[in-house]
Amino acid sequence: MSDTDPGGAMDPQAASAGRSGRRGRGGADARRARRGGGGLGPQMTAIVRKVPLYDPLSEEGLTLVEENAETVLQEIGIEFRDDPEILDLWRAAGADVQGERVRMPKGLCRALLKTAPRRFVQHARNPDRSVEIGGDSIVFAPVYGPPFIHNLDEGRRYATIEDFRNFVKLTWMTPWLHHSGGTVCEPVDLPVNKRHLEMVLSHIRYSDKPFMGSVTAPERAEDTVEMARILFGADFVDRNTVLLSLINANSPMVFDETMLGALKVYARANQACLVTPFILSGAMSPTTAIGTLTQVLAEVLAGAAVTQMIRPGAPVLFGVFASSMSMQSGAPTFGTPEPSLVLYGAAQLARRLGLPFRSGGSLCASKLPDAQAAYESAATMNATMMAGTNFVLHAAGWLEGGLAASYEKFILDIDQLGMYQRFAEGYDMSERGQAMDALREVGPGNHFLGCAHTQANFESAFYRSFTADNNSYEQWLSEGGLSSADRANRIWKELLAGYEAPPLDPGIAEALDDFVARRKAEMPDAFA
Amino acid sequence: MSDTDPGGAMDPQAASAGRSGRRGRGGADARRARRGGGGLGPQMTAIVRKVPLYDPLSEEGLTLVEENAETVLQEIGIEFRDDPEILDLWRAAGADVQGERVRMPKGLCRALLKTAPRRFVQHARNPDRSVEIGGDSIVFAPVYGPPFIHNLDEGRRYATIEDFRNFVKLTWMTPWLHHSGGTVCEPVDLPVNKRHLEMVLSHIRYSDKPFMGSVTAPERAEDTVEMARILFGADFVDRNTVLLSLINANSPMVFDETMLGALKVYARANQACLVTPFILSGAMSPTTAIGTLTQVLAEVLAGAAVTQMIRPGAPVLFGVFASSMSMQSGAPTFGTPEPSLVLYGAAQLARRLGLPFRSGGSLCASKLPDAQAAYESAATMNATMMAGTNFVLHAAGWLEGGLAASYEKFILDIDQLGMYQRFAEGYDMSERGQAMDALREVGPGNHFLGCAHTQANFESAFYRSFTADNNSYEQWLSEGGLSSADRANRIWKELLAGYEAPPLDPGIAEALDDFVARRKAEMPDAFA
Repeated sequence: MSDTDPGGAMDPQAASAGRSGRRGRGGADARRARRGGGGLGPQMTAIVRKVPLYDPLSEEGLTLVEENAETVLQEIGIEFRDDPEILDLWRAAGADVQGERVRMPKGLCRALLKTAPRRFVQHARNPDRSVEIGGDSIVFAPVYGPPFIHNLDEGRRYATIEDFRNFVKLTWMTPWLHHSGGTVCEPVDLPVNKRHLEMVLSHIRYSDKPFMGSVTAPERAEDTVEMARILFGADFVDRNTVLLSLINANSPMVFDETMLGALKVYARANQACLVTPFILSGAMSPTTAIGTLTQVLAEVLAGAAVTQMIRPGAPVLFGVFASSMSMQSGAPTFGTPEPSLVLYGAAQLARRLGLPFRSGGSLCASKLPDAQAAYESAATMNATMMAGTNFVLHAAGWLEGGLAASYEKFILDIDQLGMYQRFAEGYDMSERGQAMDALREVGPGNHFLGCAHTQANFESAFYRSFTADNNSYEQWLSEGGLSSADRANRIWKELLAGYEAPPLDPGIAEALDDFVARRKAEMPDAFA
Repeated sequence: MSDTDPGGAMDPQAASAGRSGRRGRGGADARRARRGGGGLGPQMTAIVRKVPLYDPLSEEGLTLVEENAETVLQEIGIEFRDDPEILDLWRAAGADVQGERVRMPKGLCRALLKTAPRRFVQHARNPDRSVEIGGDSIVFAPVYGPPFIHNLDEGRRYATIEDFRNFVKLTWMTPWLHHSGGTVCEPVDLPVNKRHLEMVLSHIRYSDKPFMGSVTAPERAEDTVEMARILFGADFVDRNTVLLSLINANSPMVFDETMLGALKVYARANQACLVTPFILSGAMSPTTAIGTLTQVLAEVLAGAAVTQMIRPGAPVLFGVFASSMSMQSGAPTFGTPEPSLVLYGAAQLARRLGLPFRSGGSLCASKLPDAQAAYESAATMNATMMAGTNFVLHAAGWLEGGLAASYEKFILDIDQLGMYQRFAEGYDMSERGQAMDALREVGPGNHFLGCAHTQANFESAFYRSFTADNNSYEQWLSEGGLSSADRANRIWKELLAGYEAPPLDPGIAEALDDFVARRKAEMPDAFA
């Protein structure tokens, strides 16, 4: 497969224009792809934020954290485990390497990171779905990682590949999820060593949005890159980013061999890494926001710098997963004020460092899609949005501390995402927005329902929630007196029933199937 | 009753010091009053915001709205209905009065408002509970106005005076509700024309936090002021603000005789008015944020100016109640993005005008304390907090578009208020906050649980939610698999069971009872 696309364009729409003809997509297919999924309306492009940021950490605080983080790197250092290649790279770069502990002179990591792009495009197989990561862009992706699913019919049970496909389908049908995500749930019915093949294949087959790669072993990362090459063409993949993959630090101050192995595969292939300290403050970091931010910055500086030593210019994100530990039970907690302070501060640090930022999501500890779940998720998502987070993993479907992907919570969450996308549009200060004609026409004591301005703006005036019940008590009662979770239960079933797959070039589909079949045949099944 | 307090002090604590001896309160009583209610911890003073504001409306947008509002006042004008006295005042001030329509020359209202205070203290009968309104202060008050209550045991039914007292008691026991509010629910079991007497008496008897006055008729406002004089002393009331009362505009661009009558009583008595356009965008204002803000500013400028014509220096707040109408059903909707944009813009306009700001709350349309209720309430409360709203009515207990006061939602909401209060404290940048000792002690690959820093900060490290369940799925299931509303149901009952009234001077209690008995005897019962 040859590909003559120049690539590297910073505007996903421009990239689209260059590539949309390539697949020879027919008119009906193209319309279906544009429309996206069924009843929720046309697909939205990634948010381009038109409202300002909220920056609660002062210049003094930011400088303090930056200086303290450099002190941590120099005095305490970071451990890179079981990876002599990376230790050699650090030595060559001028770090002090003792065993697996690497101490970096002040400023070294920042200097190494100068080659990392401030923003980049992650390409989707449908160019209309390509997203820009960085700058004023905000990209929403679904929950990542749960071994269980939860729904109102079955309660909680282990997830299967069918659930995985369902969440990929629902994500594809959601106008405000701009990204298909990665491990939307763990398909535990498949062998551990073969899951990644079916997961990547599902993202490609059931969606045309950008997706994430496997990180559970270097060879699984290689398989992901290989499948991306079949899909996009090898040259295109080498010159463009088509995969975004989650590289967690083992906080505090450790990167392990699994994560480093995946990082090296992706960085070498010019694919993006989300370097993310996964923090439960009180256990994996100090109890304070400033102390946690110091550690997070040190970990990200060190981890992200590795990508640039592997391949200068490879895209890398400043990530943080911030929660607090219950000091009573040791359990993770969500939606509390302290992680919001960490999130805001980290976003500010990332902007100063010049890296795109990942954090947040609709995080909660609740076991049900109830008021606790919503209050916790709203607290996290609000900070996520106001901080201008560029890539938002876990934006929909997260339940029970990330142990379960909830079908109903997914539906409730995506309605909120639609509202955030509207909010980010900000104020319309045009004549239409000023509405002086309406004020003059209506005057004191009358109503605006029938005036020309209202009639002209009727359809688009307000975001319409599809999960809220705004009817009278009596009408609500006569319709069964349902909770919002009950209504969400109906909605996800209706959506899945109406799902139609986006078109995929049959030659590519066949090549991908062949690759997956061959790789499966090469390995015995493994379940642990 | 004489009172030698100099009054007018801007610092509630200073005012407290001046007045706490006056009541001759004993040690045990004082401790009980300080402790406040039972299991939720010590009472908190009003929030003093240490995090910055979020100001999404640009200078250009603010100027545009301000100019358009002056145009509305000059060209369209505001109607003041059935109140010749106020029309005469406007005429004398230089406005063009045609019938009941008053057109104000540009700048007139702003000039009149120069005498209004930027901030003031609303005194409580317990000086420790006095609150500052304005500046960086944020005061939370419970829901106002619902004719119904809702709880999980009874569902929805009409509210009674017992419910009213319950909500006053629960509010008193809530550390993060700094204010007792007003009509926490409508006691519909009492005659309409006598309710206000029992409501004001309940606020005084079952709480020692500041409270609101009756506005449903001028004579009921007079009764409220009279009861305040019995409680605080007539001289003190004349020189200090002890009442804060809700004056709604009849949007668009009308003030009616009931509201004007109450406004005049309170302003004349040096008591505070919350001048609040009650807006359902699309019905009572244009569909756009900028158009709505223009109308809101015009209405507040005109209504608030009246207070200063009545008594220069009387405290007045810039209020707005912002929601949108469903363009499908006509029902009010909550928690959607457009009212948040209105709220933020209004807060910015109020600060430029130099008036304290009231808006927001835990608003929702949901009929149950479910995910819809929480998502909607969080969206509104978040904007409320980030906008730096000085007085937050409806901060807890609001359900079903304000038609019901929910016991369970009240509990879920106050937990959120505790989190907002913590968030507003911002970052600790001290050595403790930096936690460099902890980072050095722990180092790579270890955990922070046992380190000296964590042990020293164990108790206060993180806000502890009392409604969230953070336990494992198995433990949660073994404890009944309850929703957060189920847990809240237990909590409000436990709180009410543990309620003890704050001390009240017996002579004052008797005088208030006498007043109420006399006023009741003077009027026949009226139920409409």
